[in-house]
Amino acid sequence: MEEVVLLGFWTSPYVMRVKIALLEKGVEFEYKEEKDIFEDENKSELLLKSNPIHKKVPTLIHNGRPICESLIILEYIDEVWKQQKQLFSHDPYHRAKARFLIDLFDNKVGDCGRRMWASKGEDQEAAKREFVEFLKLLENELGDKPYFAGDYFGLLDIALIPITCRFYTYETLGKFSVENECPRFMAWVRRCNQRESVSKTLPDPFKVFDFVLEIKKRFSIE
Amino acid sequence: MEEVVLLGFWTSPYVMRVKIALLEKGVEFEYKEEKDIFEDENKSELLLKSNPIHKKVPTLIHNGRPICESLIILEYIDEVWKQQKQLFSHDPYHRAKARFLIDLFDNKVGDCGRRMWASKGEDQEAAKREFVEFLKLLENELGDKPYFAGDYFGLLDIALIPITCRFYTYETLGKFSVENECPRFMAWVRRCNQRESVSKTLPDPFKVFDFVLEIKKRFSIE
Repeated sequence: MEEVVLLGFWTSPYVMRVKIALLEKGVEFEYKEEKDIFEDENKSELLLKSNPIHKKVPTLIHNGRPICESLIILEYIDEVWKQQKQLFSHDPYHRAKARFLIDLFDNKVGDCGRRMWASKGEDQEAAKREFVEFLKLLENELGDKPYFAGDYFGLLDIALIPITCRFYTYETLGKFSVENECPRFMAWVRRCNQRESVSKTLPDPFKVFDFVLEIKKRFSIE
Repeated sequence: MEEVVLLGFWTSPYVMRVKIALLEKGVEFEYKEEKDIFEDENKSELLLKSNPIHKKVPTLIHNGRPICESLIILEYIDEVWKQQKQLFSHDPYHRAKARFLIDLFDNKVGDCGRRMWASKGEDQEAAKREFVEFLKLLENELGDKPYFAGDYFGLLDIALIPITCRFYTYETLGKFSVENECPRFMAWVRRCNQRESVSKTLPDPFKVFDFVLEIKKRFSIE
């Protein structure tokens, strides 16, 4: 009997990636919500023990062995449950490209996103420009295909879609519209949202917005 | 006929990773040295065109298609030339662990390394402590095995060994001895250096030291 435990937090897009991948693969798992991910003393003992270096969610525990970092977990899931539908292309070049874009996304969009809701004036404007530029780059990658890998919902789709539950927050606080800037990207978002794995996983954007307002208050961000 | 071109710079440990992997696989390739990797205007047109986002070495160009970012290139090499000896374990858990450690290394040691040669006083001391702590973590991972994956020289060995050509620089400028702190790690270094792929790739540590002194002068770092 396999034991699969996912330690997560409901607003983390990195956790959502892992949930979607497990749902797509049809892997049964137990989800454990952390009470708070900002202060180490509020984190669960299981998280601190399983991911002593980063102390971050998502952490997947498979038969007692922890796997950390969302992209690494996605590849692990695809490799372990390989009888189920493949999430990652078999083509080494497409795999390299997907890894490159996820890495770029992780390094860029986290920072841009934070600056869109946590800063003001010129820095916020610059973050918006960088963010839209990045989405346009992704639109370009997508081209006329329904999904990034072509006809199927794959690893790159799974890695990118969770952040879109924050778009309402970015748009409201940054005063712009992703739909106006990147309509083809938004068509892809709607397509992904029709999948049960996605619609069951992504939280209500209004709740995410309220949470961000709370965080701003908690950390005294104007 | 396959065409494999590697754009590199002689002091970059990330480039060395790719060279070692290609040598281990027995893949013939053309190596093109960049004149300078610090200012965009000194970079080759081929690099700027092939890696427009990061504009960084290593960039591998395989039959005209560029692949960027050293770890992504290593995985690509292992997947494309899979008839040759496998660099990466087949076990998903070991793969996840290797990816985790390489990612940690890339995020930690670049920064520590720079602070060991570019800063002074308390910050330099802190960088040394972090660096030694990280090497001890690696020693722990290595245990009694000859290589990180066990009996064979694999992906994690390839990813980690290049930085050791900078140890002389770190030790001289930081006034400490890695051998004293982490003798088991240094035994692994000597083991790796017996491989032709490594000894042919890693530059003379004294030349690396001279280069670092030049860089300190060029960027007015005391």
